[in-house]
Amino acid sequence: MKDETPNANGQRIPNGMLEDNYPRNMWWVAAYREEVTQKPIARWLLDTPVVLYRTEEGTPAALYDRCPHRWAPLSEGHVSGTQLVCPYHGMEFDRAGHCTKAPTQTMMPKTAQIPSFPVKEAGAFIWIWMGDPKAIDRDPPDVSYQSDPNWSFITGYMEVAANWVLIRENVMDLTHIAFLHKNTFKQNDWITAPETYWEGDSICYEQEFDLAPLSPLFCAGMGLPEDKPIKRVQKGWMPSLAISFSDWKVHDPNPDPGKRSDFIMRGCHIVTPSNKGQTHYFWGAAFDVPEISPQVAAKTKDSVVAAFNEDKALLQKLQANVSADPRGLDYLEVTLGADGAGVKVRQVLNKQLAQEGRSLT
Amino acid sequence: MKDETPNANGQRIPNGMLEDNYPRNMWWVAAYREEVTQKPIARWLLDTPVVLYRTEEGTPAALYDRCPHRWAPLSEGHVSGTQLVCPYHGMEFDRAGHCTKAPTQTMMPKTAQIPSFPVKEAGAFIWIWMGDPKAIDRDPPDVSYQSDPNWSFITGYMEVAANWVLIRENVMDLTHIAFLHKNTFKQNDWITAPETYWEGDSICYEQEFDLAPLSPLFCAGMGLPEDKPIKRVQKGWMPSLAISFSDWKVHDPNPDPGKRSDFIMRGCHIVTPSNKGQTHYFWGAAFDVPEISPQVAAKTKDSVVAAFNEDKALLQKLQANVSADPRGLDYLEVTLGADGAGVKVRQVLNKQLAQEGRSLT
Amino acid sequence: MKDETPNANGQRIPNGMLEDNYPRNMWWVAAYREEVTQKPIARWLLDTPVVLYRTEEGTPAALYDRCPHRWAPLSEGHVSGTQLVCPYHGMEFDRAGHCTKAPTQTMMPKTAQIPSFPVKEAGAFIWIWMGDPKAIDRDPPDVSYQSDPNWSFITGYMEVAANWVLIRENVMDLTHIAFLHKNTFKQNDWITAPETYWEGDSICYEQEFDLAPLSPLFCAGMGLPEDKPIKRVQKGWMPSLAISFSDWKVHDPNPDPGKRSDFIMRGCHIVTPSNKGQTHYFWGAAFDVPEISPQVAAKTKDSVVAAFNEDKALLQKLQANVSADPRGLDYLEVTLGADGAGVKVRQVLNKQLAQEGRSLT
Repeated sequence: MKDETPNANGQRIPNGMLEDNYPRNMWWVAAYREEVTQKPIARWLLDTPVVLYRTEEGTPAALYDRCPHRWAPLSEGHVSGTQLVCPYHGMEFDRAGHCTKAPTQTMMPKTAQIPSFPVKEAGAFIWIWMGDPKAIDRDPPDVSYQSDPNWSFITGYMEVAANWVLIRENVMDLTHIAFLHKNTFKQNDWITAPETYWEGDSICYEQEFDLAPLSPLFCAGMGLPEDKPIKRVQKGWMPSLAISFSDWKVHDPNPDPGKRSDFIMRGCHIVTPSNKGQTHYFWGAAFDVPEISPQVAAKTKDSVVAAFNEDKALLQKLQANVSADPRGLDYLEVTLGADGAGVKVRQVLNKQLAQEGRSLT
Repeated sequence: MKDETPNANGQRIPNGMLEDNYPRNMWWVAAYREEVTQKPIARWLLDTPVVLYRTEEGTPAALYDRCPHRWAPLSEGHVSGTQLVCPYHGMEFDRAGHCTKAPTQTMMPKTAQIPSFPVKEAGAFIWIWMGDPKAIDRDPPDVSYQSDPNWSFITGYMEVAANWVLIRENVMDLTHIAFLHKNTFKQNDWITAPETYWEGDSICYEQEFDLAPLSPLFCAGMGLPEDKPIKRVQKGWMPSLAISFSDWKVHDPNPDPGKRSDFIMRGCHIVTPSNKGQTHYFWGAAFDVPEISPQVAAKTKDSVVAAFNEDKALLQKLQANVSADPRGLDYLEVTLGADGAGVKVRQVLNKQLAQEGRSLT
Repeated sequence: MKDETPNANGQRIPNGMLEDNYPRNMWWVAAYREEVTQKPIARWLLDTPVVLYRTEEGTPAALYDRCPHRWAPLSEGHVSGTQLVCPYHGMEFDRAGHCTKAPTQTMMPKTAQIPSFPVKEAGAFIWIWMGDPKAIDRDPPDVSYQSDPNWSFITGYMEVAANWVLIRENVMDLTHIAFLHKNTFKQNDWITAPETYWEGDSICYEQEFDLAPLSPLFCAGMGLPEDKPIKRVQKGWMPSLAISFSDWKVHDPNPDPGKRSDFIMRGCHIVTPSNKGQTHYFWGAAFDVPEISPQVAAKTKDSVVAAFNEDKALLQKLQANVSADPRGLDYLEVTLGADGAGVKVRQVLNKQLAQEGRSLT
């Protein structure tokens, strides 16, 4: 951070929009599982070019996307058996990044070693650890509901030209729904700050709402009419900077005969920094309802995308303005009561950076 | 300025193409009056993101385009009564930038104060003062002819990817008409340097021309045939770095019976820096002729735009070359006799910067 | 070079992808002869904006593309007799860059002197010397075959967004043909490193191949069937960093009655840095066969372009990755046996830079 002075509100500006502010010793999501196949793909993660692929056996792998010979992007190459073949001169590498073949010679260049990154498959995702492999002390967060047949899981992806913390804070303070999304979510009763608290390492918020129609985004998934008043509890939690959830727990006090009273829509918000001004945003909307029809899933996805595009457009303009502004980060950043979860996000971020010997404050 | 050495001609390079060189304690044009409505607009002025809008009462206002809460661009919000509402979390601000409402709480965040900029409506324009408000010591330049019913006023706007001083000097030395505009203006008799002098704080140039056909750009507005020889006096003056005028005073020695002998076309050249490489250019072409027909106005505008596009194309290439060139500003800048007004422009600029405690020399 | 530490392989990274690494005291190719006419063209060469033109007498000339008066690009101007006329205010300059006319005044501004660059026509090209003219100690490399009627010469041009050394090394190590071009060249027998050696100042490589069908790219030019086994010697040489050749010497052991047994296809690879991340790549494919038909020439050109586009795409991705990567040049660069010519390229480069008092190591 260039500007190390506290701002007028007594806070330091911790969001690091203009600098690298990504902890490395943690699991980030690299991709949806089905994105990673024997055809290698290139993806920037934490300011690093990464090639993601599967061996012919199906094992996922992630390497630094630069051949140690003449620096060609390996993501332009192909998989052969368990090896990734460089597109330029045909050198071959295993999942650990060791060179196993240099076609024009018999002697193996022992120094030809590519940095490799541990990956794990969990839920719908492939997770990557880009820091010190010796520091791996946990599994990726539990997302087993994503493959639970009692749930229906709708997913999407957006590349957002904004710092990942902007999205992380956005999804941890849903009071913006009543303003930014008033024409899409139409859930305009969220106008007070929720309670926020810790559950272990997870940041949580929770709030109960009076009888009111549910946002039309989620009615179809639950089979509810759009004008039917229901009770609603909103519970969110963030087990890691990489992922947070927002449960919309719906109670229908007057269900049709033989119908369910209670439903959950579980929002899932995954951010992975591409670089300081660019973020991979993976999202999910899951219902504890098995086998939602393709029509309902498509309708739900369309309306969620429309709403999230509102966030994307706003955050991108915000980022572009701050990036272009000579004033940069040197401005007020007033905190409101509704920022309880957002403030905790920054505490977690600062703590993790401190553990890595880095700091934004 | 990185390069502070005088160039080979003994001059310092004062145009600051690659640095911030905009005086702040002066009125600049922010917009045409009709551009500013209850629907807020975003505009970069002097390297600052500004939101321009009118309250429901019609009063124009200008604020720094960043909410002091989470930095959303207020230009994406809306006007409600006398307040500007942030698009993100619904915070409301008055014209002075004071927060008057934070929807999720009853306590007002007193530190939530946005920088505001004084604005004035004069002539066709909204003027903005982006420096110290206490330093306001004058009104915007007199442009009352712009709303005088005895004049017809044709206007246009261009965003030009070049430093504002390049345009300012361009319009203060019209000897380029005979070269750059030889196929549009077709006024190829301007091949000697005009006299330049001061009228108070205004830079002036003046030159008298022999009988010759008038540029076809202005014949229609005056009702003159394109091949009729007329006498012409060119008088220009620059009352402020923000605005200059160029009068084409035409005398027809042989008017048709009952017709006028004398006409004025008053060019108006307004530049406002967006940033060091980008300029808002507002222009006007006014005739002291009431009620010019829409056909004549449209024809005149088309031909003026064609000519000004020649300036735009050349100055943009010039700026792009110098910006990309490692040599930067470290090159000759030879001054000719015809640069009398341009040299004075730089004197005014340096004087104003010095008054603000800044300097380009 | 920011990073001056040797990399893990003990080598320094000499390719200077992210810095200016172009020797100036040598002949570079500025353009094809027919590109340079009385209509001036703008071209960036060695990070310098250059205007190329011919006087009305046909003499080619090259000037720094900035008028010394108000910095307009002279490439937007026009030629008048032996003079180049500035588009902005009509100042005129001779081939040596001396101002010969300033239209608005009689006194000539003696300081108005534009840097000029020596040029020479040789073969199909106009060559330019951008360093110290006093250091000119040789002619451009011999390319007389390009205008020899016993040869047919097919040419092309690509602008490549990659450092010139990447292309230079690419064309000096053709073992990549078996991998990167396996679907275009289809000459998949080049899987061992060639011998490399010096002939005077020229870097050479040479290799003999067993009977095998010739790459379909060159069969048409030699009138050979695509499946006919032939003997082949590959000989390459680089007389200057600006230009290298690759001869495909073909021997048909069973020619049809009365037909030739021996043919040469002479590849010509010319690189000229535009800037550190952008290169002009001029290429030629010449056959020692007179009067190749337009159909065969067009077919040959199409297939060569398809193959060279593979290099372009790969090198551009490589350059973009390294440029965006915070790691920059700080990475392994393992050298293989097949890099013999490439290593010599860097020796030549470092020697020339040292002669100019500069260094990449």
